[in-house]
Amino acid sequence: MINKLPSLLQLTKQLQSVPYLASKNLYKVAFHFLTLDEKKLEQFCAVLTHAHENIELCSVCCALKEKKDACLFCAASKRDRSIICVVETWQELLSIEKTGGYFGLYHVLGGAISPLDGIGPEDLGLDLLASRLKHNQSTELIIATNPTVEGEATAHYIAELVKKRGIKTSRIAHGVPLGSELEFVDGGTLSRALLARETL
Amino acid sequence: MINKLPSLLQLTKQLQSVPYLASKNLYKVAFHFLTLDEKKLEQFCAVLTHAHENIELCSVCCALKEKKDACLFCAASKRDRSIICVVETWQELLSIEKTGGYFGLYHVLGGAISPLDGIGPEDLGLDLLASRLKHNQSTELIIATNPTVEGEATAHYIAELVKKRGIKTSRIAHGVPLGSELEFVDGGTLSRALLARETL
Repeated sequence: MINKLPSLLQLTKQLQSVPYLASKNLYKVAFHFLTLDEKKLEQFCAVLTHAHENIELCSVCCALKEKKDACLFCAASKRDRSIICVVETWQELLSIEKTGGYFGLYHVLGGAISPLDGIGPEDLGLDLLASRLKHNQSTELIIATNPTVEGEATAHYIAELVKKRGIKTSRIAHGVPLGSELEFVDGGTLSRALLARETL
Repeated sequence: MINKLPSLLQLTKQLQSVPYLASKNLYKVAFHFLTLDEKKLEQFCAVLTHAHENIELCSVCCALKEKKDACLFCAASKRDRSIICVVETWQELLSIEKTGGYFGLYHVLGGAISPLDGIGPEDLGLDLLASRLKHNQSTELIIATNPTVEGEATAHYIAELVKKRGIKTSRIAHGVPLGSELEFVDGGTLSRALLARETL
């Protein structure tokens, strides 16, 4: 039936290509765009295009930056250039920035090693990280990939990569989150917290 | 921090205006658009604009239609013009069409009466339905609004509206869904199924 409405079919196909738009909501999103004010739709498209044209990845740390400006991290004079924190994504960089407790540089991988998804070290630009460490005055590397199978694999890979360079490497601590109750923490986290116990 | 990246800020604000893009996924969606091929982004915008220009609501039944074509339902010669089925949304119209068991006309309300959200009968174009029934040869009205508080209220409102016109009005049956087990059906549904039992 929907085949008889080619414009609608095209629209839903385009929307389906956007990740995280569950198909259950597809028509609701389609309706949002169909009933949008003409000017607002123009603005929506203009903003998409503008962002696409004006945002790029920093060639050093792979964080997002405005094309016309310098990188917020690499070019900042107040940042501690001796520490690099490796994160998987830009969102995780933002989370660390929000803590307000980290003032070093970053390196954004854009994902984690995942052979099943066909993502290898070369797809994450780990060679970029390696050459960055070679030509750089950094002395410490904090690996803040996620505590998932892929994140752990990536952390191991990077640790191996860095080992021979004599750079101090650490992994963020994993354990019981603050404010939680032990009763409701999963077994894996709890046994990790026990293994990584700190001497007082 | 994000304030220093105006293009990104604008993009996330635009994306936030789209319903059903949970804020948790906001950056993932933003990344999708930022990393999209330039041509594909152009195409995306073109399709949005094309759909916006070429799709409209049928002036009679409020179903979606191509501007250049006649309504798929109102103008179809094979449809039974004596029955009108009232649904809340286009998606629900599609669900009923998919059953393949209904050949009458439709009336799409675009929502349900919900005083808390400020949606009254006039916002749903119920006056359009009333005038349609007045000038029409329809003899039966099936009310297929959702079995929610708002849907039931809308059903009652329409039933009252139609009563004086001598048009046969019915509500789709509510009860235990096929293939389910009584044990797992909620109490409200089960008591409704008992009340609306059919004599064999």
